[in-house]
Amino acid sequence: MQSIDELLTSLSLEEKVAQLSCAGRCYELAEVAGDEPDLDALLNRFPHGVGQLGRPSMGRSRDGTERLTTQLQAAFRDRTRAGIGILFNEEGVHGLMGGEATVFPAALGLAASWDPALVEAAYAAVAAECRERGSNYVYAPVLDLARDPRWGRIEETFGEDPYLVATMGVAAVVGLQGKGDRIAPDRVLACAKHFFGHGIPQAGSNAGPVALGERELRRDHLMPFAAVIREANVGAIMVAYHELDGIPMHANSRWVSEVLRNELGFAGMVSSDGFGVPQLATVHRVADTPTDAARQAFTAGIDCEVPEPVGSAALVEEVRAGRLSVDVIDRACRNVLNAKHRLGLLAPKGSSEPGTYVVEVDRSEHQALALRAAEQAVVLLTNDNSLLPLDVSPTGTILVCGPNAAGAHFGGYTDPDAAGVSILEGMRARFKTSTVAYREGCRITEEPATAATWWQDEVRLADPAADDDRIAAAVAAAANADVVVAVIGGNEATHREGWWFDHLGDRSDLTMAGRQEELVERIAATETPTVALVISAGPVDLRRVVAAADAVVWSCYPGELGGEAIARILAGDTDAAGRLPVTFPRSTGQIPIYSGRQPSAGRGYLHGDAAPLFPLGHGLSYTTFGLDSVRVATSQVTVDDLAAGGNVVIEVTITNTGARSGSELIRVHVDDLIASVAQPQRLAGFCRVELEPGGSTTAEFRLDAAAFTLLDQNMQSRIEPGEFMVTVYAGDQRRNVMIQVGDGS
Amino acid sequence: MQSIDELLTSLSLEEKVAQLSCAGRCYELAEVAGDEPDLDALLNRFPHGVGQLGRPSMGRSRDGTERLTTQLQAAFRDRTRAGIGILFNEEGVHGLMGGEATVFPAALGLAASWDPALVEAAYAAVAAECRERGSNYVYAPVLDLARDPRWGRIEETFGEDPYLVATMGVAAVVGLQGKGDRIAPDRVLACAKHFFGHGIPQAGSNAGPVALGERELRRDHLMPFAAVIREANVGAIMVAYHELDGIPMHANSRWVSEVLRNELGFAGMVSSDGFGVPQLATVHRVADTPTDAARQAFTAGIDCEVPEPVGSAALVEEVRAGRLSVDVIDRACRNVLNAKHRLGLLAPKGSSEPGTYVVEVDRSEHQALALRAAEQAVVLLTNDNSLLPLDVSPTGTILVCGPNAAGAHFGGYTDPDAAGVSILEGMRARFKTSTVAYREGCRITEEPATAATWWQDEVRLADPAADDDRIAAAVAAAANADVVVAVIGGNEATHREGWWFDHLGDRSDLTMAGRQEELVERIAATETPTVALVISAGPVDLRRVVAAADAVVWSCYPGELGGEAIARILAGDTDAAGRLPVTFPRSTGQIPIYSGRQPSAGRGYLHGDAAPLFPLGHGLSYTTFGLDSVRVATSQVTVDDLAAGGNVVIEVTITNTGARSGSELIRVHVDDLIASVAQPQRLAGFCRVELEPGGSTTAEFRLDAAAFTLLDQNMQSRIEPGEFMVTVYAGDQRRNVMIQVGDGS
Repeated sequence: MQSIDELLTSLSLEEKVAQLSCAGRCYELAEVAGDEPDLDALLNRFPHGVGQLGRPSMGRSRDGTERLTTQLQAAFRDRTRAGIGILFNEEGVHGLMGGEATVFPAALGLAASWDPALVEAAYAAVAAECRERGSNYVYAPVLDLARDPRWGRIEETFGEDPYLVATMGVAAVVGLQGKGDRIAPDRVLACAKHFFGHGIPQAGSNAGPVALGERELRRDHLMPFAAVIREANVGAIMVAYHELDGIPMHANSRWVSEVLRNELGFAGMVSSDGFGVPQLATVHRVADTPTDAARQAFTAGIDCEVPEPVGSAALVEEVRAGRLSVDVIDRACRNVLNAKHRLGLLAPKGSSEPGTYVVEVDRSEHQALALRAAEQAVVLLTNDNSLLPLDVSPTGTILVCGPNAAGAHFGGYTDPDAAGVSILEGMRARFKTSTVAYREGCRITEEPATAATWWQDEVRLADPAADDDRIAAAVAAAANADVVVAVIGGNEATHREGWWFDHLGDRSDLTMAGRQEELVERIAATETPTVALVISAGPVDLRRVVAAADAVVWSCYPGELGGEAIARILAGDTDAAGRLPVTFPRSTGQIPIYSGRQPSAGRGYLHGDAAPLFPLGHGLSYTTFGLDSVRVATSQVTVDDLAAGGNVVIEVTITNTGARSGSELIRVHVDDLIASVAQPQRLAGFCRVELEPGGSTTAEFRLDAAAFTLLDQNMQSRIEPGEFMVTVYAGDQRRNVMIQVGDGS
Repeated sequence: MQSIDELLTSLSLEEKVAQLSCAGRCYELAEVAGDEPDLDALLNRFPHGVGQLGRPSMGRSRDGTERLTTQLQAAFRDRTRAGIGILFNEEGVHGLMGGEATVFPAALGLAASWDPALVEAAYAAVAAECRERGSNYVYAPVLDLARDPRWGRIEETFGEDPYLVATMGVAAVVGLQGKGDRIAPDRVLACAKHFFGHGIPQAGSNAGPVALGERELRRDHLMPFAAVIREANVGAIMVAYHELDGIPMHANSRWVSEVLRNELGFAGMVSSDGFGVPQLATVHRVADTPTDAARQAFTAGIDCEVPEPVGSAALVEEVRAGRLSVDVIDRACRNVLNAKHRLGLLAPKGSSEPGTYVVEVDRSEHQALALRAAEQAVVLLTNDNSLLPLDVSPTGTILVCGPNAAGAHFGGYTDPDAAGVSILEGMRARFKTSTVAYREGCRITEEPATAATWWQDEVRLADPAADDDRIAAAVAAAANADVVVAVIGGNEATHREGWWFDHLGDRSDLTMAGRQEELVERIAATETPTVALVISAGPVDLRRVVAAADAVVWSCYPGELGGEAIARILAGDTDAAGRLPVTFPRSTGQIPIYSGRQPSAGRGYLHGDAAPLFPLGHGLSYTTFGLDSVRVATSQVTVDDLAAGGNVVIEVTITNTGARSGSELIRVHVDDLIASVAQPQRLAGFCRVELEPGGSTTAEFRLDAAAFTLLDQNMQSRIEPGEFMVTVYAGDQRRNVMIQVGDGS
């Protein structure tokens, strides 16, 4: 077989440039959008091949997608001169965005599990469902840090903490790609995004400028990308829309070429974000035309433009006219070809190694996984008088009400036709012998939101006056019920990706839309025990709800079996296992507030509280745990030990002191007490333990050099001798142990 | 006379170190705090001299301060070996903080005048009132940009815009210091602060970390400091408490020594902020002891520690022990001595040039200036149906109500005993023939706030229930009045410098405290025409007030004659001349929002509005203006022309088209339409015009190279050829003109 270099040399300039873009999205591209692709027309329009095609699965059945991808691969492999197979890019941040695909909890919900194995399994399922239908490349995971809950894309992240995001990100990439350089037949190429710092846009406004110093950028925001490169050989990285200090990421050769490529050693493919190239002209105004934008983007280190060749259409002409070096084209094309090689898409025509593999998926296994994931994602925020788990007599009445009760909510990047189990359905199925009554209570948006709502530009909030009767009916029903589950929060219309000026999605106020707080308050005033179940993309202002309700439960969008999972949790079939992957501020005005801020942050407000409403890691269990001991094998270590790969071993013994089996999260944070550069307390390890009543276990944490390393005044990584305080958290308990790091000698 | 170098050489190490700190604040230092200083005891404790003493004027009369400073200067000049005079540092950001001194409007109010000559005059008055009593060094102006209205120190700034802050900052330094290198007998040494970036602390929390890229730091936050160095030879600069990307400013050799000292060529004295040195240990944890902190701070480029020698007390020992180079001490001492030399404090003992000058001040002139400044600071935000100026019949009734009506409010850094004219007093004095009734309406804090309240740690907000009767009484009185002026806002307890964890002052919510909005709404519901007069430290959430009231007027704390000035404005004796120096957000959740954000900022919120409630420069006049024409002498210029000092001249003709004399602000903003680094629209010029009815004038703006310069990808200042759009704003009118900048050839 010929090498990539030989192949590259054999390609014409047109053939190379054809590899550098996505021809379009399958549901939009005229030749492909219908039931049967017009292959002749497509080949006529793209005679030199195509690098990628977008979203073949969206709106298509499994079989329909397989038919499409098989025909497309065959056409371009057999009927173009170069015969290079196609990358089919898909959305898959919480399940493949396609017909008949499994919808998992949103990424922020997956992160609430604090269970990397679960995350790996979920993304492996995404990969298999892709590959089953001939698709091969997924835009996931999102490695942005959730540091502004106004931002509409917070649901796509693994939370606010770099260590958590990196751990989950590595798990996700391994789940998608597997571990080898060659991608196995049931795996896909992964694209980690959005490089980088995208999670803290100015004022929470999507794609707004990111203002951070280089040290914080590297330590926190770059770290998860470095991890998926180093530990998971991620195949592609997508650059973000925003600018850093005036330089848009799509034209940022410093970070894309010098740092990502050269310093971090990323050998994969660098992708634009959708229409990110022309936005150099239309948003950032650093380019005067889309072609100028493409010239800048490819020169800066971008290897491919998606979802259409807006700027790259003219690259052949740019090279011919001497305005762009062919070396740039060659570099980009080589990176694209390398990515395709990992998938076998460069196999010679007629070879035994097809570009498209078809694997068989047992969807029931994926659904079981989605159910388990949804269970792990549910966070019990408050539980006064142990109202939960519900103890309802077989003849009792449960009132389920609220705007998020009757529909299933999935969040963005979900197939528009996706369906699932609502909370109401889940409750009715689980509490068969009790009466489960339903009232709407109030609305969030005038029309019920579904996965399709996410696409609509215009959002009509509910008419508050029209809620008068709904609230009254719910309050009346509550008075006659034994317990109320009020299902509130946000939906796909009220918090989402604001992808353009006419499609907004960020929030200037974390308060929930409409009269939802009032609904909970008036229901609670009936003195019927009240559970507020909050389903939302991310943190909302819960002050009034926490004050009113007896128990408050939060879940990010819980996927297709969310209603079943949450009913099981409320019933106590399984423990409330989720723990917050993101801080819940007390109010909008505390933003940004997150774990791991600098020591001088958050002095406090005159009429507020310096603390958030719920911190990172918060979540109650149905049982109780005792943090018995925290032991350090050796509390003395040297810089040289650590540099040579040594660890500080922390042993944490924990016991289930309650009467139910349950699950707890143990977190280990490290604080460099005196350092040459001001250091925050940083998360350096975590694990979940599952224990039967009376059961005890010892969890071992191995802190390596990274836990003790800082970026010094010269931006060099370094471990400084001195005292480090290790704090172990389990539930509301904590223990400190001191580690003395000596200098090398 | 000996040179500074000769003097330095003659000093012992103890004498040098003595110059590097402030011995204490005169109201706290045991030997000085009483009526008569115990000079023997003081000399016994500081036998080698003192660099500075703090706040001699606070709580002291003019004559009392003069007596004190004269005795202290004489003691240290005559009775120490070196005989070096004392720097007396004073607070003076809006008038000298001392007994019997004139209280000017807060700096943010002065900035609302957009009148640099007024600012220069006000700070010249501060200087004269200092010098009159033997004091000589003032901690002003504040050059931080007001970019987060949660921050309690916003009142001390000149607003959000670098050009505006720089212009006002230069005016203030010239007012304080005069123009020569030697400080004249009626001037003082100025200390510009807080170096730098202090105005956008994380989450609005005072002294919190500042997260900005270097380009934005330089272009916006460094710029005013560069201006006062270059254009006004400022004598001292105080570094700020915060850290930049992990490096506290007090230990930041990069910015303090490399940039401030070497690159910007600052030749004056670098001061710590109060207790900023030990905070390297206690807050930032980059030092383990105050002595270690001092070693780091002085090594980084700090020249003196205030207000007490916490860390610097041990510097002699540090040098003797070889832990600190004497070169550091010499450098710092040289800078202190240079500053003293500018004031004549190094004159030989018994020479004809005394260290202390005494000038005579005509306080009535300063009061007239304070009145004029307060008038210029008042911003008319809305004026439905031209309710203002008030047209009240001689027998009519004006109800003045609200928590800010009866007391005078000055903001922070005001002498605790300061007194002034309240709004109620001003209204009663001005509307002599009408009845001016008063009801309290509601409270902000349980105790009325005064200048002294600013010092109290504990703040007790008003009991909302206790306001029931007050609101009812005000509403009843409103129903019988011809017009209501509801005076609301904040006070010295609810928004202020949060200088420590037990003395908070920042806000997590811009909504006004207590039931003030309800008061306005219920008064307005009586249908009596209602003016809401908002007195506050900075922007508050005015949505409900704007919706309810017929007219809304804002003033920052207006100084001692604020009540008189505001009554004159409401009566129409003079035009409403103030224009906002800071953006008023629609809500807390829009923060940060300010003029001159990057082009990708502020896409908008799903249920909000991308625009603020009131933008920079907003403010209505009582008359109307026509923006007749905007002319450019030449719309073609070259990079070389500009580099050689050439200007683009913009001529703006404006006419008073109304029936009253009045005042308008003309602003000129420049937008580099396509640039290699994303550029915001930037303020590049402004002026006020005063016109009689029918009067017309042409204002000329000369845009120099700075208006067209960017910091390129390599952080080099550069003008890039291309199209620039100049936008001229006057009131709600605007005109664009295009400028073509050609390359040099």
